[in-house]
Amino acid sequence: MNLTGHSFIGSSRASDSNTTFQVTNPATGQLLEPAFHSASTDDLKKAVSLATEAFQTYSQTDSKTRSNFLRTISEKINAAGPDITPRMMAESGLPEPRCEGERGRTVGQLNMFADLIEEGSWVDARIETANLDRSPIPKPDLRSMRRPLGPVAVFCASNFPLAFSVAGGDTASALAAGCPVVVRAHAAHAGTAEIIAIAIQAAVAECEMPEGTFSLVFDSGIELGAALVANSDIKAIGFTGSRAGGRALMDAAAARPEPIPVFAEMSSVNPIFILPGAMAERGEAIAQGLVGSVTLGAGQFCTCPGLVFGNVSETFESTLKSGFSEITPATMLHSGIHQNFVKGLTNLQSQDGVGTIEQVESKEANKAGAAILKASASQFINNPKLNEEIFGPSSLVIDCSSRDEMLAAASKLEGQLTATIHGTDEELSEAGDLVQILEQKAGRVIINSFPTGVEVNSSMVHGGPYPATSDGASTSVGTGAILRYTRPVSYQGFPDFGLPAELQNANPLGIARLVDGKLEH
Amino acid sequence: MNLTGHSFIGSSRASDSNTTFQVTNPATGQLLEPAFHSASTDDLKKAVSLATEAFQTYSQTDSKTRSNFLRTISEKINAAGPDITPRMMAESGLPEPRCEGERGRTVGQLNMFADLIEEGSWVDARIETANLDRSPIPKPDLRSMRRPLGPVAVFCASNFPLAFSVAGGDTASALAAGCPVVVRAHAAHAGTAEIIAIAIQAAVAECEMPEGTFSLVFDSGIELGAALVANSDIKAIGFTGSRAGGRALMDAAAARPEPIPVFAEMSSVNPIFILPGAMAERGEAIAQGLVGSVTLGAGQFCTCPGLVFGNVSETFESTLKSGFSEITPATMLHSGIHQNFVKGLTNLQSQDGVGTIEQVESKEANKAGAAILKASASQFINNPKLNEEIFGPSSLVIDCSSRDEMLAAASKLEGQLTATIHGTDEELSEAGDLVQILEQKAGRVIINSFPTGVEVNSSMVHGGPYPATSDGASTSVGTGAILRYTRPVSYQGFPDFGLPAELQNANPLGIARLVDGKLEH
Repeated sequence: MNLTGHSFIGSSRASDSNTTFQVTNPATGQLLEPAFHSASTDDLKKAVSLATEAFQTYSQTDSKTRSNFLRTISEKINAAGPDITPRMMAESGLPEPRCEGERGRTVGQLNMFADLIEEGSWVDARIETANLDRSPIPKPDLRSMRRPLGPVAVFCASNFPLAFSVAGGDTASALAAGCPVVVRAHAAHAGTAEIIAIAIQAAVAECEMPEGTFSLVFDSGIELGAALVANSDIKAIGFTGSRAGGRALMDAAAARPEPIPVFAEMSSVNPIFILPGAMAERGEAIAQGLVGSVTLGAGQFCTCPGLVFGNVSETFESTLKSGFSEITPATMLHSGIHQNFVKGLTNLQSQDGVGTIEQVESKEANKAGAAILKASASQFINNPKLNEEIFGPSSLVIDCSSRDEMLAAASKLEGQLTATIHGTDEELSEAGDLVQILEQKAGRVIINSFPTGVEVNSSMVHGGPYPATSDGASTSVGTGAILRYTRPVSYQGFPDFGLPAELQNANPLGIARLVDGKLEH
Repeated sequence: MNLTGHSFIGSSRASDSNTTFQVTNPATGQLLEPAFHSASTDDLKKAVSLATEAFQTYSQTDSKTRSNFLRTISEKINAAGPDITPRMMAESGLPEPRCEGERGRTVGQLNMFADLIEEGSWVDARIETANLDRSPIPKPDLRSMRRPLGPVAVFCASNFPLAFSVAGGDTASALAAGCPVVVRAHAAHAGTAEIIAIAIQAAVAECEMPEGTFSLVFDSGIELGAALVANSDIKAIGFTGSRAGGRALMDAAAARPEPIPVFAEMSSVNPIFILPGAMAERGEAIAQGLVGSVTLGAGQFCTCPGLVFGNVSETFESTLKSGFSEITPATMLHSGIHQNFVKGLTNLQSQDGVGTIEQVESKEANKAGAAILKASASQFINNPKLNEEIFGPSSLVIDCSSRDEMLAAASKLEGQLTATIHGTDEELSEAGDLVQILEQKAGRVIINSFPTGVEVNSSMVHGGPYPATSDGASTSVGTGAILRYTRPVSYQGFPDFGLPAELQNANPLGIARLVDGKLEH
């Protein structure tokens, strides 16, 4: 496939610019062709203006039209698989099965949202019928449902070049809801972004959607992203990335004359708590599972467990030690991530009382040597630095000598995407206090498993209190993600013909609705 | 009833402070007894600390316990009616029927949330059952539901001493969700606040809720409110008031180390569009309805219509003129509101091309003379000052000479709580373009009626894009308000006994649930 490196401004491509950048293959250090042209602020304005125009049409499409559009995107992405995988591998250092798997997840998400909007009940239709005889004043007919917010800006994640990027969860849920998107590509995998954008724009054309339904801008700095957030026609932001980056977007969005919602998924250390019975009964198996969960994908998952709490047994520690020692250093997504990993690890090792159980040496560029460290609960409780995320294949074991110490440590945690407990049935029946602390800290609480592996379905909450995300009431994975780009609207006293189909008397779409307080479906 | 003027710090009362204030009767200018003692920052810390402690118990109560608590509050408020009404009348200048009606609405809201949580389906329970045979990896059991956020700070509104104050919608929905509240009383009706707080604390004691479930602090400045928002244990804010006040809270909450959601209902001009057929057919009746809607409660409703668009007929204008001329000046809630009304009106009248159709003179202190003004569509489109809310009994008629001009004016509107269209059936069948603009601007779109009169039920959206509110995806009225103080939590791989009742296999509460994508109830 012939890449041009030009931004997608609706169905047109932006022209050459003075500022260009190339993607580096993190495994080889080689610069990849072509040069990508940073979009100008005029290009960006044009893209947002097209999105605003598109919203007037796209927000009025019926769900069948939008689901067909989503399925067409997913077909075109699958058809582009032979182009996507090699480029993605070259840009990210990720192995082929992961690239193929992530493409499967990405088209799966698009199809999931297509199914969701075809079924239609997600709009939360509520009908209160009129009662003209009510005294002292008649009750009006009042009906509500979710409607799209407007053009959405999506920032691609470094760690999921497909599933959280150009056609990832944010784009899929925004398009499903009826919102056009303007995507800022991640500079580290701009070529993958271009291939996906070609597929989406082809689907836009084939399905006769307005061209502004989708745009993609390239940039390697932060100025364009700042201009995107500041644009008054952008009505919401989706972002997956660092805490610093997410917070900067939150602050910028909150400072606008019209503040807008930001859905940023940022940082999480995904603590694991091992209760004594489980440690005794199956410490070795848990340690083995932990090695896999921490080092999966070079530790570059948002749900990588970075903290482990328990009364550490010898077996557990020695299994961790031998397990980590066998992990081959793996190429990280780009040099910036690798540098931060090395810096974060060195900084953590320099903290009082932090010891190293095992650390794999890596001399190769951009390859992370996995590490497992150890400290005591009192050190954890007294030093907030031990609470910080290190993005990569490392974890810190906190030795807790008592249950009280474990609970005290749990109380010190910041907001998390996930928190996990390993325990025997008997222990779990008495773990209400720990569950209670953790459900106040995390979006997902897990029993006897590991947090990596995020199901994409109706029950998934991939979210959590700050700093895990900017908005703990939202999820970036699963069907619930469609809600973030919508708001409820009430229609009062409308003639039946003037109502959206979802709210008409005959219920032509056959969706579930709350009618006068009773659920009908 | 003997009022003491001391803040409620859980079940205790704060002691005397150096800073006191008294409430002024806006109708007479008379200072009312007693003096209210501003809470100290230590009092406030204590209240939040008690709320945080209470959350650990209160968040775990079952819905039957909480609904009983809400009903007990409502009974005690009704029993205190004979104390509430005279004090509320003296503090607000509102007439007796309004005070009695607002008490009815307030207890109605408490009972509505009691019903809602007793029924239980509001938690949005979603269950994905395990499939161990799934390949390549087994599907885990994953279940999610809404859980409370933590202690909530509620700021009382000036314009609803009961329904949007101490035991108003924010408190009722937060308590229903499982969140303790710390309320900051409005200084203009501190005595009413104390009576309600006595009722709530009596209910706390009778129902054996933890004392920190409810606190109320008095203050006449802004420092205590700022300290409340900055307190790291406060997890959400509810506010109804001015745009400046709401924005200050939004900014403060966004600047915290851990930003928290703010649900502020601020300003809205509630535009009304009159299509030519309706103007011709029933211009007189619409004008009469408008006079009532604008001047109801001295125009001190959030939904007071401050802008009217239409091709103004002679009959319409003369009916408005005679209607407004007959409105007796009414006492406003307090002198600050009255001063702002006079200033806002004078400022608007000084704008280029703004004329006065009718203005009632008022020489009495704190009494607002109703006013109806007029300008052209082009003046409206070119001068953003004509878009600003004037809180009180006035409205501005914008003469639109064409449909295009009306649509252009509609596009210039800021975010609104409501937008209304009057039209004939034939006109409405062709009003899709106008409806589309308005549903993007407002939380509630109304046909052939008036925006004052806010139903409290499952379909009400009392919200809308900024600056109407801080979060257009939320509502402060109706059952949907419970969602603002909650977030979804996923439970993965839990043994059945460890799950909340709402998610257990046997569905012991008999609620509606989404099970493997199918709605069961």
